[in-house]
Parts: sequence; structure tokens; C-alpha cells
Amino acid sequence: MPVERNNDLHRVVIIGGGFGGLYAAKKLGNAPARVALIDKRNFHLFQPLLYQVATGGLSPGDISSPLRGVLQRYKNISVLNGEVVDINTDQRKIILSDGEMIYDTLIVATGTSHHYFGHDEWAQMAPGLKTVEDALEMRRRILLAFEAAEREPDPGKRHALMTFIIVGGGPTGVELAGALGELARGTLKNNFRNINPAESEIILIEGVDRVLPTYPPDLSAKAETKLKKLGINVRTNTMVTDIQNDTVTVRSSDHTEQFHARTILWTAGVKASFIGEVLARRTGAKLDLGGKVLVEPDLTIPGHQNIFVIGDLANFSHQDGKPLPGTAPVAMQQGEYAARVIRERLEGKNPLPFRYRNKGNLAVIGRNAAVADLGFLRFYGFFAWLIWIFIHIRYLIEFDNKVIVLFQWAWNYFTRNRGARLITGNDPFPLVEVQEKKVATLGKK
Amino acid sequence: MPVERNNDLHRVVIIGGGFGGLYAAKKLGNAPARVALIDKRNFHLFQPLLYQVATGGLSPGDISSPLRGVLQRYKNISVLNGEVVDINTDQRKIILSDGEMIYDTLIVATGTSHHYFGHDEWAQMAPGLKTVEDALEMRRRILLAFEAAEREPDPGKRHALMTFIIVGGGPTGVELAGALGELARGTLKNNFRNINPAESEIILIEGVDRVLPTYPPDLSAKAETKLKKLGINVRTNTMVTDIQNDTVTVRSSDHTEQFHARTILWTAGVKASFIGEVLARRTGAKLDLGGKVLVEPDLTIPGHQNIFVIGDLANFSHQDGKPLPGTAPVAMQQGEYAARVIRERLEGKNPLPFRYRNKGNLAVIGRNAAVADLGFLRFYGFFAWLIWIFIHIRYLIEFDNKVIVLFQWAWNYFTRNRGARLITGNDPFPLVEVQEKKVATLGKK
Repeated sequence: MPVERNNDLHRVVIIGGGFGGLYAAKKLGNAPARVALIDKRNFHLFQPLLYQVATGGLSPGDISSPLRGVLQRYKNISVLNGEVVDINTDQRKIILSDGEMIYDTLIVATGTSHHYFGHDEWAQMAPGLKTVEDALEMRRRILLAFEAAEREPDPGKRHALMTFIIVGGGPTGVELAGALGELARGTLKNNFRNINPAESEIILIEGVDRVLPTYPPDLSAKAETKLKKLGINVRTNTMVTDIQNDTVTVRSSDHTEQFHARTILWTAGVKASFIGEVLARRTGAKLDLGGKVLVEPDLTIPGHQNIFVIGDLANFSHQDGKPLPGTAPVAMQQGEYAARVIRERLEGKNPLPFRYRNKGNLAVIGRNAAVADLGFLRFYGFFAWLIWIFIHIRYLIEFDNKVIVLFQWAWNYFTRNRGARLITGNDPFPLVEVQEKKVATLGKK
Repeated sequence: MPVERNNDLHRVVIIGGGFGGLYAAKKLGNAPARVALIDKRNFHLFQPLLYQVATGGLSPGDISSPLRGVLQRYKNISVLNGEVVDINTDQRKIILSDGEMIYDTLIVATGTSHHYFGHDEWAQMAPGLKTVEDALEMRRRILLAFEAAEREPDPGKRHALMTFIIVGGGPTGVELAGALGELARGTLKNNFRNINPAESEIILIEGVDRVLPTYPPDLSAKAETKLKKLGINVRTNTMVTDIQNDTVTVRSSDHTEQFHARTILWTAGVKASFIGEVLARRTGAKLDLGGKVLVEPDLTIPGHQNIFVIGDLANFSHQDGKPLPGTAPVAMQQGEYAARVIRERLEGKNPLPFRYRNKGNLAVIGRNAAVADLGFLRFYGFFAWLIWIFIHIRYLIEFDNKVIVLFQWAWNYFTRNRGARLITGNDPFPLVEVQEKKVATLGKK
């Protein structure tokens, strides 16, 4: 059923279906332009809730929306499942792993991936949290560690199995630590017969002097207090210097220390998508130290008015002098801005530069607690947590009517249950390193 | 936190956490016995709804319940994540891949797996539907086929990509065909720009003369009518003789035919778990042609009063002369029966033989339609569908308070949406066999 095509229409290609790309596409819905959204995956992922999948509270389907479904009512938009490998800016052409595509205007919104600060070999031992597969791998490791501990007679090894180290005290690390604390001390409390999950040690390691370093200091202090109440061992001013199997070596100001932990989770660093380098090579665009593309006040690349870079991949420093943070609200506003500029240019107008309107930042620390920084107002506790819930639900509903997540949360809240505690994968039962020929607890004596 | 143990207590080991094993365990909760439930997975899977995961309607977490959570309130029950490799009936010992366990009474409930009738090489091309991973693989293949079709310019190849063959017209095949029909003709209707998913061909192949062969003939006829209304091509009296890449060869009474389809789904045969053979070798128990263990009127193995075999692995033929079907209600009742026998024996009583109380059979064929056989009453249509919904919800709620599934269903019903349409896996974007260097649709002309 070939669709009739108007070949005179302006062609917009958007690379990446995250918050930036998806909001750009929605704002271009029914515009006088042909729009293609390219993504490696067939769904938009609500990344801010990925830590809930990693700790068994939500299923991947709860926080994902099929891109085709979200955009189906805009007949001028097509979705393409594909992988971009290069961009030919001279011929205005996207090179895919299996094809090419012409653009008149390009919006690049490919975001970031994990960054191990030059220690890529740590990735295997300390998985990050960017994709659905990452989250399922974390969930798998966390749950398998408890399973192995239940069967481990050696107290030292058992302690290592019940020790969880989270590297990185930004919002993801703080939220993950809080959720893990509640999993161990709440949900799993009566699940085992030989171990008490509440005795788990959860260590949150942060290099600078406070958690949530991008928040105001008083909220960082509140967050730390709340984490400690949940039994999290918070170690600030502490750098990871080595990770070997189940040993993490850290350095504080005055000494070096080692932790033995079977489960190490990485929420420390991000690096820009390689598409940033491609753009630099092809257009001479400048990158910052993290590989992000320095953009003009209208989010385009210098000398390339028809190439926008938005979201986590962009370094926008024309407001208050410092770069905007890599958050969902920034990406969404930039996506909408780029779409508006394209529409206005098509109407012959002269668009204004981008301005980020900061509506505040929120981070949640377990049940009933969050910190909120609304600029003019900072607060924490139950009320901040409620606001956090409602903001997240609002976005989820906007995308795909995920009312279901609200019910799931309400249910988890009242029952303290987390129903998605599945160990899945190709190799469903490798007991980390299986203890040799051990007689299971029930049989002996 | 070692738990105090009473070593004089009777030791019951249950192998398998499906319907049979889990119901046995629950009925032994707080009994004067020490109970261990062993399963390879850490969760119970509500298999009758697995086809909903395969077609993007539900997430795996929606139909799974962590075994430890379900059984946590019974302090005499421990759950063991482990793989049974052998049973030493002389020493009353279970041999695990990494340990051993002593039993006084054993309940074997390890069920069945796929069976390709001597053509194991078909498994790669035509995946079955027994595990969460199976369902995700089906979902992945189905969704990738549409993605590839959207980009395929050759009409013949496009048709093969949009052809889905389901081998086996039992309840799973019928339900899968119905859900696939609704996915293609409803949910995905407006998702694509170059193809019309409603033009997909869905072929259901059944070897005998009607679908749902274990149901009364009039209900089979109703089911077939409903499937045809959904646009399913129903081929009865048709045997698959060969599967090669994307070509399925079938034989009807009078001729041979070939279908070209990229997606082939297998719901045809099951074979008994290998534990059946282990039991036969160790105890001399007899197996039927499908490898199921012939059990006594009290579900034990001849000469081994302390070994029960229940659920799909058991062949119980002491009622009406023919074996009971491999359904969830049979497994649940047998699990409860085995538990009751153990309790009564401990009290010195003499238990009665097992009787299956048939409360009816139900199969659903898409939105609003099901067939129900309650023995004294047979009916179909919307009312049967409602009953089906309520029965399934009731069981889900019983296990893990999965009220959420009810909301999810209600939502899917009213919006015709299926939110869990994720393509996940290690290799998120292999375009089946990637078409060489094809210019994507938007770019050309």
C-alpha cells in the first residue's frame, strides 16, 4: 500500500527517539514537511524510571512506548528502525548500516552512553543503566546474588554476595540505592530462610563531597540523611581506583580501602554518542571534554543552519554561562524548540534563540521521600515524593496512556511488593560461580 | 540468620514450581513437615497467558510471581533455585547440578517441553511457547517481520515477511492466532506508512480434522468460524512435512503445498520432561508414548508410595479410561491432592484415590469471543469470554495479587492498544537478513 508522496515537501530527519527526538517529532506532526524518525529500537524508553526495572518494581513494557504507536496519527511522520553509522553533510545524506536517507534539515538527538573513565574493562563487572537490557541485567545480578547467598555457607563469601556497591551519587545512583535499600529491607524481608536480606550492605560511592552534586547543597544533605536512614552506606569524596572480580578499591583523601562485593552497579559517568564525533569530523563542530557538541544559540552547528543537535548530546552554554544539564526536561524543550524553528523558517519567519525554562529538579529516595528544587522553592519529604510521582505519571500518560503504571505504583506502595522480580535471560541459573558439590541446607544433618 | 531446624520432621521435596508444584507447596504450608520447592527459575509462570506476552499485550512480569514471595508466609517451606539432574531413589536423594538433597516424600511436577516430532532442527526456525524467553523471542520475530516488511520493496519478499504460520490448532495455537490477528488488523493498523498490516496472512495449521481437538466438535466449529472472521486461514487435516528457512511444506489428504513465511510459530507438540525417564530408569516406572509417567490411583509410582508424579508429567488413566489432559486445573488439583495425602499419612489416615473434578475448559479467540465447555453446558461468544477473563484474573490474584493485569486488560480492551510491543534482546536490530544497501523510502526520488 504505497503512500502518495509529495516530493516537494521539506524533508526533516530526526536521529534518536529519546525525549529530545520524540518531542521534536510530535511538534512536527502535521507540519508541511516530511519527517522521518530513526531509532535503533522500536520504542521510546522512559529512562528516568529505568532504576525501577532494575529493582523489580516495574516491567520494561511499563516504561516503554512503541514509537510507531506514539506517532501513528501524524501521517507526515514515518518511523524507521535503523542504525546510523555516518552523516554526509555535503550531500545532506544519513548513512545507515543498510541504506541511506536524504535530509533537508537534520535533528541529531542520539544522547549519551556509559563512560568508565578509560576503564572499559570495568563494564563487564559493573554494568551501567541506559537500556532495557542493562536494567534486566542489573535485576538479574541483584536477585541472583540473594539466591546465591541463601545457599552460601561461608560467612565471608555470603557477606560479599550481600554487598552491593553503587558507583556514582547522581540522581540515578541515589534513586537506585534507595530502591535497592527498600528491596532488601522491605520486599525481600521474609523471602529467605538462611539469610536476612535486611543485613545486606549497600554502599553508594561518590567522588565529590556530596550526593546529587548538581542540586543545592541543603538538598544534597537531606538526601544523604534519608539514604542513611534507609541503611545505605554513603561514601562521598571517594574515588574508585580499581575493580577486580568482586573487589572494589577506592581512595578517599587520606587512605585506600577495599570492599568485597559480588554486585557492582555503575551510575557514574556518561559520554556523548559517537555521532558527536561524526559531526565534528564532517562539519568542524567543536566538542567539549565529554564529547558533547557545542551548539549555537539556536541549537544548530556553526555554519550548518540545517543541523540541530539537541538533548544530552548538545552542550548549550548561552544561558548563565554554564552548560545546561543532561536531563529530560532540557531535551524535551530543545526538541520542541528545534521543531518550532523549522516550522517558522518554512513560514519565512526569523526564530528567537533557545531559552531553557527551568521548572525544577526532583530526585526520589525510596518510599515517601524525595528532594525537589524548584528554584524559588526547595523542599523534601513526602510532598516532594508526591510531586515526583505526579510529574512522572503525567509524562508516561502523555506518551502512551500508561495509566497502568499509576496502579502498579499504588499497589506496590500499599503492599510493599515488587512483582517483577524475575531472573530472566539465556542462562537462567548460573549461581554466579557455582559452589562445588554443596549439600543443600534441607538435606543435611 | 540460621533458622532453627527440627530434624525429626518429615522432609518433602517438590520439583517444579508450575501449577502442580506450587499448589502442592501451598497446601503443605504450615504442615508438620519440612518442605523444599526446587525450580530452575525464581518465579512461577502463568503459562496460559504466555501468548499475550508473545503478542505484546502483557509484560512477562504481569504473568509471573516470584516463588519466594508467594510462599514467604509458610515458614516450613524453603524455595531452592536449582537444577535437578538425577534422582537416587535408593538413598532418597535428589541430585542437583551443584548439590544434593534428601527427601522422605518426593513430588515430581516438572511438566513438559516442546516436541518437534523428531525434527529438532525445526526448533530454530519455528520457536515454541513454554518460557518467558520463548514468548519474548516470538514477540521479537513478529514485530521485526513488520519492521522488515515496511522497508522491503520486493512484493514477494514483503508477502513472506507478512505471512505468519502457526503450527498446531490446540488452545495455545488458537489463542495465539486470534491475538496475532488482532495485533495485525487492530493495534498496528495505522503504525506503518508503506505496508498495511491488515493485509498480513495468518495461517493456522492443524493435523486433525478440527481445531481444539480436545473440545466437543460443535465448539471446534464455532472457534473455526470466529478465527475465519478474524481473517485467519485455518487449515485442518494438514501436516507439516518440512520447514526450510522461510518455506513450510505441508501435506493435506490429496496434495502437497508450500507456504513462504518468515515467521513460523510452533504450538504443536509437547514431550515430557526428562525427569520422567530418570524415574523410569530408577524405579521401573512405565512411560507412555509421550514420555509421561503412568501413575497409580493415588498419583504415586508403582512400588514407590513416597514418590508422586503430578501435572503434565503424569499419565493418570484411572478415570473414564483415558488420560487426563495436560491442563492447569488438572495440575492444581493433583498438587493439592498429593499434599493432602502427605498430611493424612502423617496423621495415620488412609487417603482416598485421586478424582479429577472437571470444572470445564475455556479457550479465547480474540476480543469478545471464547468457547466454553462446562460439561453440562457449552457456549461461546462474549459471555464465554467474560468468564475466561474472570477465571484467569482470579488465579492471578490468588498467586500474587496481580490486580494490575485486570487494569491492563481493561485498558487494552477499550483502547485496542498493546503497550508491550518491545523488540528487545542482545541484538536489537538485525533486519532478519538485512537487505543490501537499500535506499530508505524517504530519501529517494
